[in-house]
Amino acid sequence: MHRKFDKITTFERRDAITYPAIRRWDQEDPLRHRREEFELPGGIIYMDGNSLGPLPKATRGRIEEVVAKEWGQGLIRSWNEHHWIDAPLRVGDKIARLIGARSGEVVVADSTSVNLFKLLGAALAARPDRCVVLSEPGNFPTDLYMAEGAIGTRSCPLQLRLEPAERIIDAIDANTAVVMLTHVHYKTAAIHDMRAITAKAHEHGALVIWDLSHSVGAIEVDLNGCEADMAVGCGYKYLNGGPGAPAFLFVSQRLQDQLTSPLKGWMGHNRPFEFIDNYEPANGIRRFLCGTPSILGVLSLEVGVDLMLRSRMQDIVQKSRWLSELFVDLLADICPSLQLVSPANVNDRGSHVSFSHPEGYAIMQALIERGVIGDFRAPDLLRFGFTPLYLRYQDVWDAAYTVADVVHSGCWADPRYAVRAAVT
Amino acid sequence: MHRKFDKITTFERRDAITYPAIRRWDQEDPLRHRREEFELPGGIIYMDGNSLGPLPKATRGRIEEVVAKEWGQGLIRSWNEHHWIDAPLRVGDKIARLIGARSGEVVVADSTSVNLFKLLGAALAARPDRCVVLSEPGNFPTDLYMAEGAIGTRSCPLQLRLEPAERIIDAIDANTAVVMLTHVHYKTAAIHDMRAITAKAHEHGALVIWDLSHSVGAIEVDLNGCEADMAVGCGYKYLNGGPGAPAFLFVSQRLQDQLTSPLKGWMGHNRPFEFIDNYEPANGIRRFLCGTPSILGVLSLEVGVDLMLRSRMQDIVQKSRWLSELFVDLLADICPSLQLVSPANVNDRGSHVSFSHPEGYAIMQALIERGVIGDFRAPDLLRFGFTPLYLRYQDVWDAAYTVADVVHSGCWADPRYAVRAAVT
Repeated sequence: MHRKFDKITTFERRDAITYPAIRRWDQEDPLRHRREEFELPGGIIYMDGNSLGPLPKATRGRIEEVVAKEWGQGLIRSWNEHHWIDAPLRVGDKIARLIGARSGEVVVADSTSVNLFKLLGAALAARPDRCVVLSEPGNFPTDLYMAEGAIGTRSCPLQLRLEPAERIIDAIDANTAVVMLTHVHYKTAAIHDMRAITAKAHEHGALVIWDLSHSVGAIEVDLNGCEADMAVGCGYKYLNGGPGAPAFLFVSQRLQDQLTSPLKGWMGHNRPFEFIDNYEPANGIRRFLCGTPSILGVLSLEVGVDLMLRSRMQDIVQKSRWLSELFVDLLADICPSLQLVSPANVNDRGSHVSFSHPEGYAIMQALIERGVIGDFRAPDLLRFGFTPLYLRYQDVWDAAYTVADVVHSGCWADPRYAVRAAVT
Repeated sequence: MHRKFDKITTFERRDAITYPAIRRWDQEDPLRHRREEFELPGGIIYMDGNSLGPLPKATRGRIEEVVAKEWGQGLIRSWNEHHWIDAPLRVGDKIARLIGARSGEVVVADSTSVNLFKLLGAALAARPDRCVVLSEPGNFPTDLYMAEGAIGTRSCPLQLRLEPAERIIDAIDANTAVVMLTHVHYKTAAIHDMRAITAKAHEHGALVIWDLSHSVGAIEVDLNGCEADMAVGCGYKYLNGGPGAPAFLFVSQRLQDQLTSPLKGWMGHNRPFEFIDNYEPANGIRRFLCGTPSILGVLSLEVGVDLMLRSRMQDIVQKSRWLSELFVDLLADICPSLQLVSPANVNDRGSHVSFSHPEGYAIMQALIERGVIGDFRAPDLLRFGFTPLYLRYQDVWDAAYTVADVVHSGCWADPRYAVRAAVT
């Protein structure tokens, strides 16, 4: 990959990255005006958009419109007149463009966890003679818990088999019903090879479910290019849909008619408003809807997705890598006591990085108090997200120096930083 | 029950109900000021609050605060600082007060459909040697579909047995794992005897799940008084939580430790932020959470619940009955061609009524065009909801005369009223 640092032609060495040079990168950034489309509080460098994306300015007005006009004035009529009923598929179609999917392959619904259960249940029913759900230890916990739950409902001798990332591909065999992996690891940001794992699974007749929560809107995802089967993803991280925004799910067109969700809700029925006693799955992706969709959530998410669609994905991906490299390289120089646990090669990781430090929790609290917001992931990780739509190179520079200052000063040893909050 | 009409002491006969008398009832109504707390569009009589409750005025400001301040300025910190993490249990505790439950027995989460699946799965796992899920034909379809789905994931010889309402109690036997019923029927508004059915089920060691979607906030519900096991309910009907608002679920304290949701999401984990690979259910009702809660949805719902809690439930229930009686009695006089399909005795029905008419769909479209908003339920029902917080006696009077006028005039025969919308 072309390194951003190559641009600094007058210097050869890494320590020649200067603040004026960084400021110039911001001026040349093709995404530089996107930042103006977000409400960002002053004095904050927000490196946790991979956990909760910030508020797009347009969301306030849109939510006010949905509440006051569509709900307040339109009342029940808005299901038709303001097309609420179509929103899950409409927003799904927009997300499809970010992940290499086709129109009609993605729908917005429920939470990532619930969508995983739907797809796991559908996959297990489609491979009834196989015994293994394959994943990796340390996968995002809800993924493993939902697999445990999906397996627990079935009395056949199914097992959840966890293999380290590097052994996954070799562990796929004729006994594998479904491989379930998070594409970009939520802690390390390590990327799984979607194409190779999918190909291996298909060779053995297994299905694959990808969790795109830490990928969508941040790195290149090409579901159909990889012949992916199924995927889920989160709406409140890089898509900036708001706290607890609904999630999405993808099912390849070639599989939609063969798969049925175990969560047979009325909104996934072929004729929901005929109110008949027997379930009859809708054609296409709509069958993976369940209950009544959260309209505030879906329409808030739509604003975030629309904002992202106004940028070129390759610009987002490129800038993500440069921000990430800049941060890691700076910290390697100025704060070597932080141990990088993410892959060292930027091409092997998603849009966040994690460093371990035994006092990670307290350090992160001290950083947050100083306006650098990342997050802590137990037991000892400091995690920082790079969100190209609003993060500037100068922010990353400033954040790196703040991190080094906090770590070296020992200010994190103040007892108040040791107090654990409910959410870490 | 004390009949409202007894108040008209100078007249003996029903046809003596006069418009001035009706207006006086509105002036004497203890709930008369609640109406001012809602945004109600002019020229509309809204009798569909049982499908989508209208917008409480306070919701606009609260949602703006949540979006602009809590999300926009607080960002990820609001999970702690604005207590988002506690919202599902906090709002659950408030709903508990409307349904005869204790603090710690109700949680707000997901959709009604998804919550049904959780409770069905938990109940079936707790009664592994029993073969029958008992319900009634014509129950709200999503309930039956979710039961079908929950049964379908298990390979033991389970069946969904449907018995007419009047035969349910006799159909409960030692083979019954779980009885699942909608407390107030979504079409007819017929009320099941929660106490008697629960007692019979317990006698035979079965569990009962009540769907309170058409009960909560409209009629008296006393879950613990009836020794109920489990319940779910809807947030966007009488609770006025907004389109697709999250639902709630109840599990009796005496059962919480024995039941585990098949949807083992990370928010139901005992230590969600330790990110460990194995699921370990949280203590108490929190274990029935699944994915990240929809914060916009939960906090919008809280406004609706708070509004309701400012009134006395007995006033709401009393007025609901009087509104309902007035409407039914007026229509019996002035529009006898409509066939009441709801129980004739107001004490036997919930807070809506349905009438059948072969041209029900077109009639409802003509009514909506004239500002009387009820809804149509296939194949031939006109449904009208009574929502005591904002509906006046004079509205019900006016609505009844509009219904009579539309039905008698034949204006509904206009072809434009036959065009079916996506949502009916």
